[in-house]
Amino acid sequence: MTANRVPLSPLSFLDRAAAVYPSGVGVVTGAGETLGYADLHRHATTLADRLNASGLGTGDRVAILAPNDVPLLAAHYGVPTAGAALVALNTRLAAEEYHYILNHADVALLIVDDELADRLGPDLRTAVPGLERVLRIGGDDSYADWLAQGHPDGRLRLPSTEDAPITVNYTSGTTGRPKGVVYTHRGAYLAALGVALQMHLTPESVYLWTLPMFHCNGWCFTWAVTAAGGSHVCQRKFDADGAIELIERHGVSHFCGAPVVLNSIVNAPRAATVTFAARVTTAVGGAPPSPTVIARAAAMNLDVVHLYGLTETYGPSLVCEPQPSWAGLDRGELAVRTARQGVRTVHVDGVRVVDGSMVDVPADATTIGEIVVRSNTVMAGYLHDEQATREAFRGGWFHTGDLAVRHPDGYVEIRDRAKDIIISGGENISSIEVENVLVAHPAVLEAAVVATAHDHWGEVPVAFVAVHPDAQVDAAELISWVRDRLAHFKAPREVHFGELPKTSTGKIRKSELRDRVRSTAKEQACP
Amino acid sequence: MTANRVPLSPLSFLDRAAAVYPSGVGVVTGAGETLGYADLHRHATTLADRLNASGLGTGDRVAILAPNDVPLLAAHYGVPTAGAALVALNTRLAAEEYHYILNHADVALLIVDDELADRLGPDLRTAVPGLERVLRIGGDDSYADWLAQGHPDGRLRLPSTEDAPITVNYTSGTTGRPKGVVYTHRGAYLAALGVALQMHLTPESVYLWTLPMFHCNGWCFTWAVTAAGGSHVCQRKFDADGAIELIERHGVSHFCGAPVVLNSIVNAPRAATVTFAARVTTAVGGAPPSPTVIARAAAMNLDVVHLYGLTETYGPSLVCEPQPSWAGLDRGELAVRTARQGVRTVHVDGVRVVDGSMVDVPADATTIGEIVVRSNTVMAGYLHDEQATREAFRGGWFHTGDLAVRHPDGYVEIRDRAKDIIISGGENISSIEVENVLVAHPAVLEAAVVATAHDHWGEVPVAFVAVHPDAQVDAAELISWVRDRLAHFKAPREVHFGELPKTSTGKIRKSELRDRVRSTAKEQACP
Repeated sequence: MTANRVPLSPLSFLDRAAAVYPSGVGVVTGAGETLGYADLHRHATTLADRLNASGLGTGDRVAILAPNDVPLLAAHYGVPTAGAALVALNTRLAAEEYHYILNHADVALLIVDDELADRLGPDLRTAVPGLERVLRIGGDDSYADWLAQGHPDGRLRLPSTEDAPITVNYTSGTTGRPKGVVYTHRGAYLAALGVALQMHLTPESVYLWTLPMFHCNGWCFTWAVTAAGGSHVCQRKFDADGAIELIERHGVSHFCGAPVVLNSIVNAPRAATVTFAARVTTAVGGAPPSPTVIARAAAMNLDVVHLYGLTETYGPSLVCEPQPSWAGLDRGELAVRTARQGVRTVHVDGVRVVDGSMVDVPADATTIGEIVVRSNTVMAGYLHDEQATREAFRGGWFHTGDLAVRHPDGYVEIRDRAKDIIISGGENISSIEVENVLVAHPAVLEAAVVATAHDHWGEVPVAFVAVHPDAQVDAAELISWVRDRLAHFKAPREVHFGELPKTSTGKIRKSELRDRVRSTAKEQACP
Repeated sequence: MTANRVPLSPLSFLDRAAAVYPSGVGVVTGAGETLGYADLHRHATTLADRLNASGLGTGDRVAILAPNDVPLLAAHYGVPTAGAALVALNTRLAAEEYHYILNHADVALLIVDDELADRLGPDLRTAVPGLERVLRIGGDDSYADWLAQGHPDGRLRLPSTEDAPITVNYTSGTTGRPKGVVYTHRGAYLAALGVALQMHLTPESVYLWTLPMFHCNGWCFTWAVTAAGGSHVCQRKFDADGAIELIERHGVSHFCGAPVVLNSIVNAPRAATVTFAARVTTAVGGAPPSPTVIARAAAMNLDVVHLYGLTETYGPSLVCEPQPSWAGLDRGELAVRTARQGVRTVHVDGVRVVDGSMVDVPADATTIGEIVVRSNTVMAGYLHDEQATREAFRGGWFHTGDLAVRHPDGYVEIRDRAKDIIISGGENISSIEVENVLVAHPAVLEAAVVATAHDHWGEVPVAFVAVHPDAQVDAAELISWVRDRLAHFKAPREVHFGELPKTSTGKIRKSELRDRVRSTAKEQACP
């Protein structure tokens, strides 16, 4: 380091927060205790000391399987300070998936919360032979006892280069083996500053951890909240009533999540009687929030910001920035605008919608292309998978696999995942568009639309619908509801009722629905 | 550029603002017209096109002498897009100083506002033989006509490396030749994001240009306001009543300046009757605002944020972050806290207060050391002056030359410039401390305290005081006022009344006061 050259790293944010806000409310733990940033700093530097004493450092990877609480947050600082990269594990995987990841990432040391230890299966040590040490938070082989032997340091150690890996995030993809997405110190620093600015985080901000910290490192809010000097409020396991209570008790100003988080909150038993005293910024990503949910959220004083991103882009890369001209729109029109993915965030260099030859599609709200991203906040690559990395980076841009249109005002709106689009009679049908209409029906809680093969039209849409507990509706009514609101060919040919299958991060598992549709079609074809 | 590696540059902020806010209020011109960010973008890319067509590009420097208005703001984007570095000239220099700078920076093309052209002197072309072209805004050799021949481009061109120079800022130092402080694209990007986050800039922010844009590129707000998507309101020449009117008319949320700007506003004829409808964040730097002025500002709904920095640190490097615990303090106590320089800003890696061996002084609020800074937002170096650069960067830290203490809470408080400190009977006297007490007297408008030689004590303080137009006070009363409030040895031995000499950036010219004191002492010694 010289006077004018310092590696960019989000570790510097905790050094600053610990110096400026040592004893204020830095973190509210899952148990409701209050820590200052000096406490979090001490935890992190002590963890780094213990890891180094265990022979772990640069080039190594340390994994943690834990809920949204202090050890997981501290690991985001302590593990990189030791020189290693953090692998924060999804808390809802199967034992075999954990074994695959731990082997793939050559993890030698694993920290696991006692509540989640069973998920690793009885044969962890034989399935992952390279694993030398497993520490348990709140159990035998105690993490706390191990940590207590360490010594805190005055400063978090920056890496020798800002391009050093800081974390590896395994995508929870619905098909195929998970891939290890490598983040760097530089990328994490820039993404954190970017989301902090984009979401207007300040020292007064109070951030509720509804989004799992393991998911893209909590969209980099693990670092962004600290950068702003705001405070983290931990919720170990999301439930809507609990979240509402935490928002009221701690004066929460921000939270994030997939649409299922927002859906749960606006449909919670307490929701009908609650209007938060101060505006709460609610960032939703992973899928567009439905116009209906956006409108219900507004009634609770939740201001919905729609973000779009992927694990490969450190979380948010697009934001649906509200325009001054939208002030005059009625609530329905406004919600339709807010459901668009929007424009690039301030830290992203470029987002384009391109055809197969990397030519931009016209901004006509109709022509569909693939979203590609260029940014310092695009992953370094997939761990141990150069071929997949090259494929994702072809043409000098990261290929998201998401299909979208660009509106005349430049805003991007996703039409579908490449594999989700329904092509019927040569016309594209966006399953999201149909889903939004279904969800607007008062009886419908959630909806998913997929394609089924059709002799005449090629494909036709089929709907899967979850209904509100005390509501009743039949297929004919819903089909007619859609036909009244969209081109007739977009209406589902069939409607299936029941709970929707979901991934561990709350995305609807469309591949499973497609399988169901295929097997039904087969049965009908071969009686 | 690859999918995951893009040079950091604030040029990307204008590309984004022009795409997201093309036609909203991006800039209010000095004449009161409104431009969208698409207009500013068009101006910038057209300027770049014309510069390239004139044979100027990478490695060149383009100068501009203009007030706070659109051409100067656009030059912050257009000149670097052409590949050149911008030299934004101080508007209050003497002709010889301009000649020195233009020669020193090898400037081939100069843009000058017609109102300021006379300042360059009649012999500009002979004094600066390398100058090939001078364009006048609003005069002959018209900048507008020249610009009209250019073609706008779709995108601002990023440099091939983020370490490329973006601007050269000449320090207005009170003694010696001005030095050319080189900023890079990387540093400017990080400083802009940092101040935007630190000052809570959002798309709703309205920034009034009271600080000259030529001063550290307006503390990087030239880029930061655009990064946030806020709007710029130009005031060509600062006057307090005009600024108050612009704040009310445009709903200004932020402005910056030296203490003289804030002093003028709180003492303006209209000030007594004005309380702004919404809180206005007022960032003050260059010298601590006096507790009295902070209190008066609060009455107008101005929220004073005290920043500290130098040209060499891209402007602000320290900020006096308010602590939650200060909420209970009375107004006087709070103002004393706010007058401290504070803690490092989020984009600065480290600020220390060190002794001559680079050892940190104890945080005892008493031991004085030098402030040193390490950050990506420390200049690349002084142009054509490797020796001065090496000297400033000795020990791997930038040496500010400012002397300060560190309080037990870590907050830094400047005691004096190295050359301003008064040592009396072996005890240090901070001239700022004495000045703050003097300014708290109801009759005093401004005060400066310098040392004079004394046979017995080594040095004693002497005060220079400007009195409010309709107030009356004598030396005896002021000396007694100080003795009642500080240790007696800190009270001035003499008080001189009259207007205080200032530099073009509003700093009191203490070297001139010291000269006056010296010549008076000489006359007394040699009658």
